[in-house]
Amino acid sequence: MAKVRLDISAAAARLSGRLRLTPVMQVAPGLWFKLEYLQHTGTFKARGMLNRVLAGAPDKHSGVVIASGGNAGLAAAWAARLAEVPIEVFVPENAPAVKVAKLRSLGATVVLHGAEYAEAYDDALKRVAETGAIHCHAYDQPEVVAGAGTLGLELLEQVDHPTCVIVAVGGGGLMAGVATAVEGQATVIGVEPYHAPTLHAALDAGWPVDVKVDGIATDSLGARRLGDIAFDVATRTGVRSVLVSDDDIVAARRELWEKYRILVEHGAAAAYAGYGETQGERTVIVLCGANTDPAHS
Amino acid sequence: MAKVRLDISAAAARLSGRLRLTPVMQVAPGLWFKLEYLQHTGTFKARGMLNRVLAGAPDKHSGVVIASGGNAGLAAAWAARLAEVPIEVFVPENAPAVKVAKLRSLGATVVLHGAEYAEAYDDALKRVAETGAIHCHAYDQPEVVAGAGTLGLELLEQVDHPTCVIVAVGGGGLMAGVATAVEGQATVIGVEPYHAPTLHAALDAGWPVDVKVDGIATDSLGARRLGDIAFDVATRTGVRSVLVSDDDIVAARRELWEKYRILVEHGAAAAYAGYGETQGERTVIVLCGANTDPAHS
Repeated sequence: MAKVRLDISAAAARLSGRLRLTPVMQVAPGLWFKLEYLQHTGTFKARGMLNRVLAGAPDKHSGVVIASGGNAGLAAAWAARLAEVPIEVFVPENAPAVKVAKLRSLGATVVLHGAEYAEAYDDALKRVAETGAIHCHAYDQPEVVAGAGTLGLELLEQVDHPTCVIVAVGGGGLMAGVATAVEGQATVIGVEPYHAPTLHAALDAGWPVDVKVDGIATDSLGARRLGDIAFDVATRTGVRSVLVSDDDIVAARRELWEKYRILVEHGAAAAYAGYGETQGERTVIVLCGANTDPAHS
Repeated sequence: MAKVRLDISAAAARLSGRLRLTPVMQVAPGLWFKLEYLQHTGTFKARGMLNRVLAGAPDKHSGVVIASGGNAGLAAAWAARLAEVPIEVFVPENAPAVKVAKLRSLGATVVLHGAEYAEAYDDALKRVAETGAIHCHAYDQPEVVAGAGTLGLELLEQVDHPTCVIVAVGGGGLMAGVATAVEGQATVIGVEPYHAPTLHAALDAGWPVDVKVDGIATDSLGARRLGDIAFDVATRTGVRSVLVSDDDIVAARRELWEKYRILVEHGAAAAYAGYGETQGERTVIVLCGANTDPAHS
């Protein structure tokens, strides 16, 4: 695959003043949390989606299209509203009503069609072909990855010489953005559930392959295959995969609340679950999302 | 009443490296949150209790005594464990089992006696008289207030020239510490429920008076009377009281979750409920505690 240029500096300039500078907190010697779940829409996805939408601004009259009823869809709807561009969000007919309502409350037009996401995705691409709208992919587009990478630039400002950054991996957009931003300064560990091992399987096979995805974190880490950009960055920069069980994730999520009063979604807790103390490292754990129901904890 | 010297610099030196440097986050032009609910034990109380316990260290062999099954008791138990001093926590016989278990899990000896806190408090004072233990008051001791004041010093480092700091008021320890720390640089607003107006009533009467306390935030803002130190500081520095309803508090707590993914206790949400946008101010809202059940939100 041709190497994609990820312009994280351009993304940072474009997003400047439009995002929350999410804080870091030191929680032990050599260990910091990046509290990215405090970001607009509750996840890091706001970064990539807003970067993609703003980068496409010359075509803004034709609007934005995305297929996602999850965190990416929410973030895209928020970004489109901020950029004052109309957005259509394609979701399958069985999408949860609460998610559809949330998208509509952000001003999105929700197109319910088909039995599963593959169909919604095909519909979205057809609409883009018809109208020339800006298409947002949930994780595998240069502007989306570069937007996520601004988080990496931020933490280099916030933490003095980190040597290791731990992120959760679904499609790999966050991992790829951060690994690019901190390349040469810190290594990146991608944590994923045994039940959704997109990075692990890709590194094993030598290229992105489809994996069976289930388990507790599918809401946010439900991608079936690592993105091509993510694979390219992971292999070039030497990102390691760490696998965790659903039980590990549940325990990590509970401990984040009990010990720190941080309530995150299971996908974000995976990063904490994957942490193992290492002598001499200066580690940042990215807590990337909190689109979770407090009552289910 | 004789003026009490609040040595916040000494407290900051004593506590250095033992507390979490809780982050601030800018959420709008001129508006910051101080995320103090991320502190050890889930509230700012860790500051004052640890300062009191460490300041009394010469007498540590006789241990620590406090009457509180709430945030102060938890923080005192944590502080005593850190300082390796035994602690007895006096609570009435009807104290919730979950709170007693939590205190015990921190290594505290829990003394259950009497029908209400007034009795537990009297028992605690008797024990102190017998043994010479370090007595921790929940809010009305110079070391406790000075410890809370370290939060004020911190936010002067974290936010460039704040002009207004908003805190919730129960007994007034946090308010007094912060108002002392930021005196001459920022004004302080103390927010309290209509159902627990200790500051409002004291300013009205000209001295601390007992008020009837009930409503949704009594868990953390349940003091029946403003502390003498708090009254002294409030009148000297011109702290203003803002009263909010229980409905305001519930709405504020919900908005903190919906908009920011911050889950705090009702008492802490009161500070956010009391915020009213003001032209030209640089305001810090202190979110001071999250000892709350995520399921009840």
